Amino acid sequence: MLGNFSYCNPTKLYFGSNSLENLSVELEKYGDNVVLIYGGGSIKKNGIYDEVINILNKSGKKVAEIAGVMPNPTLEKLYEGIEIARKAKADLLLAVGGGSVCDYAKAVSVSVNCDEDPWEKYYLKFEEPTCETLPVGCVLTMVGTGSEMNAGSVITNRKEKLKIGHVFADEKIMPRFSILNPEYTMTLPHYQMVAGIYDIFNHICEQYFSGEDDNTSDYIAEGLMRSLIVSSKIANVDPKNYEARSNIMWTATWALNTLIKMGKPGDWEVHMLGQAVGAVTDATHGMTLAAVSLPYYRHIMPYGLQKFKRFAINVWGVNSEDKTDEQVANEGLCEMEKWMKELGLAMNISELGATNENLKDIVKATLILEDGYKKLTVQEVEDILKRSM
Amino acid sequence: MLGNFSYCNPTKLYFGSNSLENLSVELEKYGDNVVLIYGGGSIKKNGIYDEVINILNKSGKKVAEIAGVMPNPTLEKLYEGIEIARKAKADLLLAVGGGSVCDYAKAVSVSVNCDEDPWEKYYLKFEEPTCETLPVGCVLTMVGTGSEMNAGSVITNRKEKLKIGHVFADEKIMPRFSILNPEYTMTLPHYQMVAGIYDIFNHICEQYFSGEDDNTSDYIAEGLMRSLIVSSKIANVDPKNYEARSNIMWTATWALNTLIKMGKPGDWEVHMLGQAVGAVTDATHGMTLAAVSLPYYRHIMPYGLQKFKRFAINVWGVNSEDKTDEQVANEGLCEMEKWMKELGLAMNISELGATNENLKDIVKATLILEDGYKKLTVQEVEDILKRSM
Repeated sequence: MLGNFSYCNPTKLYFGSNSLENLSVELEKYGDNVVLIYGGGSIKKNGIYDEVINILNKSGKKVAEIAGVMPNPTLEKLYEGIEIARKAKADLLLAVGGGSVCDYAKAVSVSVNCDEDPWEKYYLKFEEPTCETLPVGCVLTMVGTGSEMNAGSVITNRKEKLKIGHVFADEKIMPRFSILNPEYTMTLPHYQMVAGIYDIFNHICEQYFSGEDDNTSDYIAEGLMRSLIVSSKIANVDPKNYEARSNIMWTATWALNTLIKMGKPGDWEVHMLGQAVGAVTDATHGMTLAAVSLPYYRHIMPYGLQKFKRFAINVWGVNSEDKTDEQVANEGLCEMEKWMKELGLAMNISELGATNENLKDIVKATLILEDGYKKLTVQEVEDILKRSM
Repeated sequence: MLGNFSYCNPTKLYFGSNSLENLSVELEKYGDNVVLIYGGGSIKKNGIYDEVINILNKSGKKVAEIAGVMPNPTLEKLYEGIEIARKAKADLLLAVGGGSVCDYAKAVSVSVNCDEDPWEKYYLKFEEPTCETLPVGCVLTMVGTGSEMNAGSVITNRKEKLKIGHVFADEKIMPRFSILNPEYTMTLPHYQMVAGIYDIFNHICEQYFSGEDDNTSDYIAEGLMRSLIVSSKIANVDPKNYEARSNIMWTATWALNTLIKMGKPGDWEVHMLGQAVGAVTDATHGMTLAAVSLPYYRHIMPYGLQKFKRFAINVWGVNSEDKTDEQVANEGLCEMEKWMKELGLAMNISELGATNENLKDIVKATLILEDGYKKLTVQEVEDILKRSM
């Protein structure tokens, strides 16, 4: 913990199979006008929409709706939502869905009372809101992004071919409350479930693989990774296992709510590589991260050897006796590879639509960061992506 | 994470060697009248008092003081503080000290506008405040209790010989902000430092040694314990080591701010035994916990064997190959014993003032809880205390 930092995370979390019960208590805290925000309609099929509407009606709320929020919420959709929230004189934005729906609700929150263009202000200039923002509540139905307990919001500008995330500084932008029922995540297809699991795992890795000091944050990160590995193996063969799914849900929240980045730098280069693959191929986010991870980590391993050795021992239980540091570190990544294959993750970017033809575009779209163990050159980006093919 | 629960912890933490800089920003949020609360005056010797007063003056605050808050703050002292805070028309209670000062500030907070007797209402009937409470801020100078980020408050009624803690349900009772500067903890004598370290360790154990399910909370707990073990060994021989002291400080906060108890039962019997020893001998809290821990854990080990085995492997790195579960679990406790002796912790209650004469009083003062792996009988309490002699 050598760094100076501040930590504040006021989101109230209701967790468990009966957590939706608490929605009415939370609704009492806000005015009458609620804007319900959701995605493609799966919540209408699985009954969650009806449950939520029922509680809203019982609480005497006037409800407007923003439906059809897409996986990568667009700027056009944001403009549409801002108008709906304004007309409804929204007192509360209630997001029911996964990370995209929650990210989108935060974007509406900071934009409703803003006279400037939100894209320019928040996603190009990274400014903080100067206007009144709207409270956001969340009923989570998908797991991975951690958006239920952070101030992050990613918006995609299709015209400009840009997908930009802004982590707002003010904790007021975090959801005021989030309702986390592991059962809601059980209807997700296997492909999406394991992609989400890898997204969580990589969020932890991005914050873990950086820094040289002995730091409590890294020990917490190791604990979260160990829990995720155990639970993911169970959920992989038994997706209805409540214990495993609940551990995965709770781990996802703590993997990206700022706790484990406290007092240390972060890497995030896997996300830069993966997002570039996603921008060109439109592949599922977690799968793009999976497909580039091992070539990336094997490349930077020599620059952060002690951390990779520690990762092998503390996370994967590698026995280090009579082995060189390199051997131990390598074995850790081999264990990680075995686990990834067991889950059925994408292990290369060609299966996600990357080709020799669009590789140049992916290289070009990859942002190069500098807080990890090795700042990549463009040539290294290209080499890593080629090894990911 | 099989249990249903809610989590909310809105305390804003400022951490690091320059963290006091942030006090003025926080002071802006409250009215002019600040009541400064502190203990026996060590903050006047080490300069922290002057620094804080300086910032209060620069912020234009009117300052009243409650000085001389003792290690186990008494009910009489509470009554005195309530009067001072009322006369000062306090807008903010600023606690500068360790857990006792912070606990005391929370007790004043819930009592200033309360017409009923606070001892009866909060510490005998365990009621929640029905009046307006005062915001509490904290500048931490000692590490261990976690009071800087929780809603717990322990008050001692000397007349009744009762020391009772109440963890309030409302997150508003938690400090609004806490300033954590590891350097402030470095002037503490070695005995107090290691007692605090064991208090932290045992807070984690109390929440860890319970429950049968696979639970993310236990993995986070293991990470915190590992971090604490590494840092405590460094601080033990090099108390001015900032890296180690900062890890210890951060671990203390997360050891008892409700995170690692989420979704699972807790034990807390070591605290019941230790507090009984403390009630009779007036020994340092952390040392009383240390002196009873091993006899207690060795006694309950067969009832929670799998968890003790896991503790040995995941926390102490015991190699389990070709060993029975009992052997592995035992080796874990032996490693713990080695570490405790290395730190110089009290290993028996006779060195803390327990005698064959007052043993009966200690047995009588021990509350028996039931969420651990074994609900003790009175005979077992006596046996454990005898083995602690």
